[in-house]
Amino acid sequence: MPSIDRQRLLSDLRTLRSIGAHGPGVVRPAFSAADMEARRWLASRYAEAGLDATIDGVGNVLGRSRQPGKALLIGSHSDTQPTGGWLDGALGVIYGLEVVRALAADAATRGFPVDAVSFQDEEARFVGCLGSRSLIGALPPAMEQGATDTHGVALADALRDAGLDGVPRLRLDPARYTGFLEPHIEQGPHLEEAGHRIGVVTDIVGLRGFRFVFRGQQNHAGTTMMARRRDAATALYELAYRINQEFPKFAAARSVWTMGRVRIEPNAASIVPGYAELDLQFRDAEEAPLDAFEQVVARLVAEMNGRAGVSVEAIRARAPIRPTRMDPRLQGHVEAAAERHAQGKWQRMPSGAFHDAGIVAARLPAAMLFIPSIGGISHDFAEDSREEDIVRGCEVVADAAASILTEANRAHA
Amino acid sequence: MPSIDRQRLLSDLRTLRSIGAHGPGVVRPAFSAADMEARRWLASRYAEAGLDATIDGVGNVLGRSRQPGKALLIGSHSDTQPTGGWLDGALGVIYGLEVVRALAADAATRGFPVDAVSFQDEEARFVGCLGSRSLIGALPPAMEQGATDTHGVALADALRDAGLDGVPRLRLDPARYTGFLEPHIEQGPHLEEAGHRIGVVTDIVGLRGFRFVFRGQQNHAGTTMMARRRDAATALYELAYRINQEFPKFAAARSVWTMGRVRIEPNAASIVPGYAELDLQFRDAEEAPLDAFEQVVARLVAEMNGRAGVSVEAIRARAPIRPTRMDPRLQGHVEAAAERHAQGKWQRMPSGAFHDAGIVAARLPAAMLFIPSIGGISHDFAEDSREEDIVRGCEVVADAAASILTEANRAHA
Repeated sequence: MPSIDRQRLLSDLRTLRSIGAHGPGVVRPAFSAADMEARRWLASRYAEAGLDATIDGVGNVLGRSRQPGKALLIGSHSDTQPTGGWLDGALGVIYGLEVVRALAADAATRGFPVDAVSFQDEEARFVGCLGSRSLIGALPPAMEQGATDTHGVALADALRDAGLDGVPRLRLDPARYTGFLEPHIEQGPHLEEAGHRIGVVTDIVGLRGFRFVFRGQQNHAGTTMMARRRDAATALYELAYRINQEFPKFAAARSVWTMGRVRIEPNAASIVPGYAELDLQFRDAEEAPLDAFEQVVARLVAEMNGRAGVSVEAIRARAPIRPTRMDPRLQGHVEAAAERHAQGKWQRMPSGAFHDAGIVAARLPAAMLFIPSIGGISHDFAEDSREEDIVRGCEVVADAAASILTEANRAHA
Repeated sequence: MPSIDRQRLLSDLRTLRSIGAHGPGVVRPAFSAADMEARRWLASRYAEAGLDATIDGVGNVLGRSRQPGKALLIGSHSDTQPTGGWLDGALGVIYGLEVVRALAADAATRGFPVDAVSFQDEEARFVGCLGSRSLIGALPPAMEQGATDTHGVALADALRDAGLDGVPRLRLDPARYTGFLEPHIEQGPHLEEAGHRIGVVTDIVGLRGFRFVFRGQQNHAGTTMMARRRDAATALYELAYRINQEFPKFAAARSVWTMGRVRIEPNAASIVPGYAELDLQFRDAEEAPLDAFEQVVARLVAEMNGRAGVSVEAIRARAPIRPTRMDPRLQGHVEAAAERHAQGKWQRMPSGAFHDAGIVAARLPAAMLFIPSIGGISHDFAEDSREEDIVRGCEVVADAAASILTEANRAHA
């Protein structure tokens, strides 16, 4: 069984944390100076580990093994939220690097090809999972054309400023790989509450989003009588409230929905708003509740538009993400490794958050493993995991990688 | 009957419009460079009109007549909203100046004392009606201490930067005055729709405001199950919706309420909000509906706080403004003058917007007159009134002023 180097693993995680560090947290959004510095550092670490390292035209860092045979791809993303935690995608990226080194150091596994990867812009500064989409050929031009961040910076300008203009974009060859393994922090409280050390992901939930646009008439809040108002905010409050009343009737056990973003114009206490926006997103591991929610939305919007006053438009806010089932073969290897390293202290679970594995799964067998998040906190400077969980998680991944590669290369041996 | 100089009136209005002009609109918020320039220009025009002109320590411009007897104060405010219209308070300020000149030019009225005023910060950059509050002695230190604008600029710094540090603050002597007359644009559509040229204000509506603060727990929108969420936005939508359902049951004919400002933290589609704010304000010419609304608010907040989850705090957002009745004697003079200049084309009406007259009325008999706003538009670059309405309004004010002063000074004559 390959054995990881605990100090080397933690040291590399801490080095990556230092690039873009803000107190305990990290500010390393895709294509920022810190992000590109981290990617150059990663490429050099990949090379030191004996991989052929490349930063491609969208910023993905890929380290390719020179060993023949069916390869396993391991990694995640090293970009962060605008105010991100230190582990989020970084954990899986450094796990990939460490597993490459651990397998190379063990006579029984040194011949196995392991590629390591850090995808770009998983956190959707411009396009969610930009890097993994590009690598598997699921980034249509329309998706990147006109993409801007919340400050209005264009993706094209960010690419140019990062020195990636004209740099070739890599495309994964599915024939090369037996699969993709993405380790990650849970970003939720379930493992911690259950006292479990490892989560083996069964599904990545699907996600659909709408932006509602409310158009009324801006007016003075003192001189405009109620009967003649067309108050965009009043319509927003009604739709949001009714969605929260209706959705539970159609929800499955793990369905979630969120209306976390509002924009009201001009957003002043003394002015009747003439324009408002409300973002809705909903998630489930099955399509049926998502379909039902969408029907509720259509019904409520139609009903509100049937009245005079404020018009409501429902715009699909992003390409829907279909629920993704993890590959049973890879999942079985991860479960077996979890049982060897955390006897009885692991569980199967869906991932409520989306991940690059949900993209890659369209082309390669994919699996995911979670380690516990302290307090379930993520996307926050306070995000953290216990050191023993970080180390154990990497041991499970190295063990699972060895057994996946042993099985996949039996014919080649 | 005194006769106003149409060209002089319009020319002065246009000069004032040019100070801080932005296209058709005006950007002249209280204490800005443009505002102070406008006030210095006004003081010089007051002096040219034979008044003793002073800019006081909060920026009020007062022009005092040297004539003996009971005086009439006429004016409004020359500060504007951040993106304001050209007439708003400016109309009443220039009317005051023109009426001083018109009465001085007429043998029958030349001996009457008319004071002209431009109050400071009616538009609440720092403290709504700062100037009129200060002039009548209703500006307690607590109201200005710590006052900042929406950009965090402190009132004390704005006063110093405007060169007003150490400048004495004027206080009106109620014994000097027979009353205060504030001419203004309607800022609503009622006169235009009724085909009326003049509105005589009966009441200025009262206003109460609350800021609701919702405190929950910020979480990941994918990994946090509905049952354990404490979503601040969900609570906000519910309270806003229920207020809109409940208030009509307690509303009078002209009651209005508005929830035009929302803040959600962190305001992202994929994050369950942990903090939110909602501003509510409600207005009526009577106290009873305002009291009833306040009871509804207290009941709904108590009910929502009775459940686990998100806490709701209702903070009084500003000092309540009590409904103010205009002085019947002054109102009678304005009505008689309106009938002389716009036979059958004037009406009595409450003011849904607040004005300095609502402050001054606590110390002096006060009255207001409206001219029509085109399309009812105000607090907007597009704010405008027809030239003939502007001129007619000033004729009514000059006529009313002459008749008020004739009556008030009969004993002295």
